Amino acid sequence: MHVSAAPIFIDNSSDPRIEAYRDIRERDLKGRGGRFVIEGEVVLRTALQLGRFAIESILIAENRTEPLADLVAKVPAGISVYSASRSVLDDIAGFPMHRGILAMGLRGEGGTAERLLATAPENALFVGLSAIANHDNMGGIFRNAAAFGLDGVLIDGTSCDPLYRKAIRVSAGAVLMTPFAQGGDIGTLCDALLAAGFEVLATSPAGKERLADIEPVGRQAVLFGAEGPGLPEHVLRRLRTIRIDMRGSFDSLNVATTSGIVLHHLAR
Amino acid sequence: MHVSAAPIFIDNSSDPRIEAYRDIRERDLKGRGGRFVIEGEVVLRTALQLGRFAIESILIAENRTEPLADLVAKVPAGISVYSASRSVLDDIAGFPMHRGILAMGLRGEGGTAERLLATAPENALFVGLSAIANHDNMGGIFRNAAAFGLDGVLIDGTSCDPLYRKAIRVSAGAVLMTPFAQGGDIGTLCDALLAAGFEVLATSPAGKERLADIEPVGRQAVLFGAEGPGLPEHVLRRLRTIRIDMRGSFDSLNVATTSGIVLHHLAR
Repeated sequence: MHVSAAPIFIDNSSDPRIEAYRDIRERDLKGRGGRFVIEGEVVLRTALQLGRFAIESILIAENRTEPLADLVAKVPAGISVYSASRSVLDDIAGFPMHRGILAMGLRGEGGTAERLLATAPENALFVGLSAIANHDNMGGIFRNAAAFGLDGVLIDGTSCDPLYRKAIRVSAGAVLMTPFAQGGDIGTLCDALLAAGFEVLATSPAGKERLADIEPVGRQAVLFGAEGPGLPEHVLRRLRTIRIDMRGSFDSLNVATTSGIVLHHLAR
Repeated sequence: MHVSAAPIFIDNSSDPRIEAYRDIRERDLKGRGGRFVIEGEVVLRTALQLGRFAIESILIAENRTEPLADLVAKVPAGISVYSASRSVLDDIAGFPMHRGILAMGLRGEGGTAERLLATAPENALFVGLSAIANHDNMGGIFRNAAAFGLDGVLIDGTSCDPLYRKAIRVSAGAVLMTPFAQGGDIGTLCDALLAAGFEVLATSPAGKERLADIEPVGRQAVLFGAEGPGLPEHVLRRLRTIRIDMRGSFDSLNVATTSGIVLHHLAR
């Protein structure tokens, strides 16, 4: 099962075996054979342990191979492990690679909303996201989702990619933990949740009910929209709307913080 | 009271009247005559309306002077208003100045913990911060403090500067709203809160009491430490410690999100 072979040393940034790592600063890796980038030791250990995403290869800075020997020893067979000097690493990545370890994950087929809903437990708690365009917010929402044990995150097609480097980093690796599916519009996701027997709550600063008055019951899902525009009107009209009471004239909570407050209240 | 004079046009980035704006990308403006930078229309309007900090001057991109004419018209006498071309602005600021409006605020004497505590209402809610080194977290905590109507924020000397540009931006201007004082160590700040009749609660992942079991009563303060190390042991030993229950093995909430959850529960 395990091969504890030493990393393969790469002495040239144009070596085709590490081509997948070229210019990973660029936002969109979606076209690159369904790969995504895992940065840093902590997140990589999480990914290896959970095994939710296949890992294609690992690239370690030469001076980190010894401190990370235990990680390398546990890498399953079939995952290539490379090492390279800092200069080769910086050259291929396109920026100074402080973390010293990268890995290439494979998105795989990805979950679909239908599959996630079909296997959701009886007391499932889900989140639905509409037009979350900011990677900090996406990562922050996933961090809260993992902390409060959510069963699934449904993300509309206009939201940003949760598997983008920055989102994974801000989530402290939680994007690799909590099952999610991305695609479609929020109205369709809402239909799917209702059809699966979920009570669906919509957050809005003008929500009719106070969060404090909502009881965690059965299958529940909470929808969050972008800061500013919020959820679309046609979604708000169909659902129970909830608000977080604030004080004074400063009516402005960050959407990731809002998700933390709501999920803390509704977590089973 | 008001002078609605047109902005003074500056055609050269070495003009001494805008020297204070040079290289504002640099982190530390503390040595610059006690100034701090206000960026963007929304935050500047907040600052002008609240008047908690004196404003020395305003610098507007030439193409924004007309859309911002109503703001300029309301600027109190004594505040110099300059305009300049984009290239002069970018040149002096040291980076592309997308927001099109900057202002120079003056820190003034600043609040002291003693003064804030002396004027605190009977049911005051305060926050105390220890070693918060990240400007995103500092800004996020202030945003929550304003949303839940806090009466004061006491910040130890090892935390970062809440008046740094990025912290103000992330706070959505809340740093200019909620009274704060910075200096000293967290143990001394804790002493001052206790002497002023506050119940002081310390947040910790290993806290003895659940947040849900804490009642908002009288004068209360909550202390937050840096993610990872948390609050110092000598502080935790003296106080009621509170935790937020999480689920599963992912025991990791962001400190700004934590402050949102705690303040939502304790807000009056």
